[in-house]
Amino acid sequence: MANKEMYTLGSQSSVIRELFSYGQEQAAKVGKENVFDFSIGNPTVPAPACIRESIAEIMATRESAAIHGYTAASGDTAVRQGLAQYMNDTYDAHVKADNFYMTCGAAASLTITLKAIVEAPEDEVLVIAPFFPEYTVFIENAGAHAVILPPDTEHFQISLENLEKAITPHTRAIIVNSPNNPAGTVYSADTYTKMADILTKKSAEIGHAIYLISDEPYREIIYDGLPILYVPKFYANTIVCYSYSKSLSLPGERIGYILVPDSVSDKDVYPAVCGAGRAMGFVCAPHLFQDVVLKCLGQTSDMNIYDENRKLLYNGLEEMGYDCVYPQGAFYLFVKSPEPDANAFSEKAKALNLLIVPADSFGCPGYVRISYCVEADMIKRSFPAFKKLIEQYT
Amino acid sequence: MANKEMYTLGSQSSVIRELFSYGQEQAAKVGKENVFDFSIGNPTVPAPACIRESIAEIMATRESAAIHGYTAASGDTAVRQGLAQYMNDTYDAHVKADNFYMTCGAAASLTITLKAIVEAPEDEVLVIAPFFPEYTVFIENAGAHAVILPPDTEHFQISLENLEKAITPHTRAIIVNSPNNPAGTVYSADTYTKMADILTKKSAEIGHAIYLISDEPYREIIYDGLPILYVPKFYANTIVCYSYSKSLSLPGERIGYILVPDSVSDKDVYPAVCGAGRAMGFVCAPHLFQDVVLKCLGQTSDMNIYDENRKLLYNGLEEMGYDCVYPQGAFYLFVKSPEPDANAFSEKAKALNLLIVPADSFGCPGYVRISYCVEADMIKRSFPAFKKLIEQYT
Repeated sequence: MANKEMYTLGSQSSVIRELFSYGQEQAAKVGKENVFDFSIGNPTVPAPACIRESIAEIMATRESAAIHGYTAASGDTAVRQGLAQYMNDTYDAHVKADNFYMTCGAAASLTITLKAIVEAPEDEVLVIAPFFPEYTVFIENAGAHAVILPPDTEHFQISLENLEKAITPHTRAIIVNSPNNPAGTVYSADTYTKMADILTKKSAEIGHAIYLISDEPYREIIYDGLPILYVPKFYANTIVCYSYSKSLSLPGERIGYILVPDSVSDKDVYPAVCGAGRAMGFVCAPHLFQDVVLKCLGQTSDMNIYDENRKLLYNGLEEMGYDCVYPQGAFYLFVKSPEPDANAFSEKAKALNLLIVPADSFGCPGYVRISYCVEADMIKRSFPAFKKLIEQYT
Repeated sequence: MANKEMYTLGSQSSVIRELFSYGQEQAAKVGKENVFDFSIGNPTVPAPACIRESIAEIMATRESAAIHGYTAASGDTAVRQGLAQYMNDTYDAHVKADNFYMTCGAAASLTITLKAIVEAPEDEVLVIAPFFPEYTVFIENAGAHAVILPPDTEHFQISLENLEKAITPHTRAIIVNSPNNPAGTVYSADTYTKMADILTKKSAEIGHAIYLISDEPYREIIYDGLPILYVPKFYANTIVCYSYSKSLSLPGERIGYILVPDSVSDKDVYPAVCGAGRAMGFVCAPHLFQDVVLKCLGQTSDMNIYDENRKLLYNGLEEMGYDCVYPQGAFYLFVKSPEPDANAFSEKAKALNLLIVPADSFGCPGYVRISYCVEADMIKRSFPAFKKLIEQYT
């Protein structure tokens, strides 16, 4: 007398959450300083000062109903206007308030977008391995099938050949995530250009638009001076899903947005986004934090801390002989398992109190994800254990 | 290339929202003081002082990650423990932290609960007219059919005879909303006892549990010293959906919970709730406001203001000759239209700048809903218009 699929989803814990829980238990036994938890992507860099300041200012200067009342379902108009202005100034985006729908974070941005565009049970949504495991859950919730493109383990860009082959008359959308969780890679302008050519050609062939869903929670976490690309410039039928969880270190506050630019060919998409939000019970995005992100537009947490962690970890592990994917964005290091079974490797790491996530559930067996949104000191202290681990393979 | 049902849901504005928008336009033309907007249920009484104090205290004493980081998907453990303690102290509820799943408000509580318990496309969920119009949207989103019980326009309690007749082998749940939006009625212990008898008998007959979904956003907005009833005491298979939107005047912050007590016979329901939240992309309820409601347990906005509005409006309209349902809870006055077509009546009211909602979309034609979560002064100033309106029928 409960829905079996929902029961299964709710009772199975993810590998990440299991490792995280194990880490907390283990810390109680052997001491927090002896457990090296690289399992979870919970930002450790504090939110920028403007978050505290904005909350204080709003609380001090506005009346209760203006702070905590309902906003329009799509979000407060002033917030969406400010956001449009910011996107125009920063990316020359040519958007306006009515292109934005404020959401309760990245997951909501995706579930709402998918529900808005999926029409029939045979619809397919492409995801590119390695990918955030919840993608397949969200695609199934929208009533479509997830089709997984195998990883390009040479460059961790998009295998355009595989992409072209994977498109069928049922293809409705592709989810692209750059900077990428878990691989830390960033897609280049060249990749987007070529991908857009394929999507345009294939849309014409199959007789309907293929949407590019650009999932960008790590947009501003990008290194080596790489440019942030505005994806709708490369491909008109792009829907942008954004969240402030990572850029402003606010993951628990659930605040983000969906951007449906005017370049999207079907004018029904934006109203369908509104309808999907309504159907799933997202009345409006949390009001106080809508106003807070408006006041903090363009700001981010201190990205230098992640950059320093990145260099420390990448250089340290490379020196020991690990085969790492060079991270250009996000806060994950993707490492090839020295044995084919990444689960076995992760277990050996666990025995040394090193908690790293096998990437099988990310669609990329044989790799592990090491999250470096941690204290730099923990990275340094973990090196002897990483050294012991690799020595088991030499 | 957008989902047609979602497009329809997103592009059709509700009667309430349309009236509300009309009111704002009209106010710009004839002056805010000449428009009497009784259309919307947006709390006007300020949040209690503890909300501002709790936010200030949390911001001043905790680190960023402890304020804004992810909580467990089901909600922070300390919050759920505090909530369990409060429910045990107040209602002798015998619940614990793990019976609670924190949500983004009442709508999310309902969509998640429905998705957790609906199994097959032929499943039916009963709603009792008059009812909050989004119920049917949420039931359809879960993949079930809404079966509407006609209103008992004599007492606006539950017609038990109709309830018994409406139950079929496909009945999965009934949604009960007391204090009621839009009728302002409160179900008595006697009503719950008799309803429980029917549900127990019918569950046995059809061979599976019928869940009672108790939607309680107005729980504490109750008048004349009527007791607040803890519904699972009357019927074991009760799932409670709650929101702090109305009791703490926080509708924009999206914070509430689902309570699945141990008396619910199927132990898969709680994990299914967790799975349904996950599938729809509710990662966790907004963190700061989880902690804020913990600090404000047992507090409410000033309910006396609503009570005074209630008396003022009820007595005023009764005196003029309106036929009103006596309101025992919530902040709505339900009034019989003096002509059979409540839409025509509402249009005549609109011509006098009186904005009142015809109840057709609430499943109760021939009635209007007058929301009195407004300034008392506006109620007083509206009386000449209400008088002119009724005079058109005498």
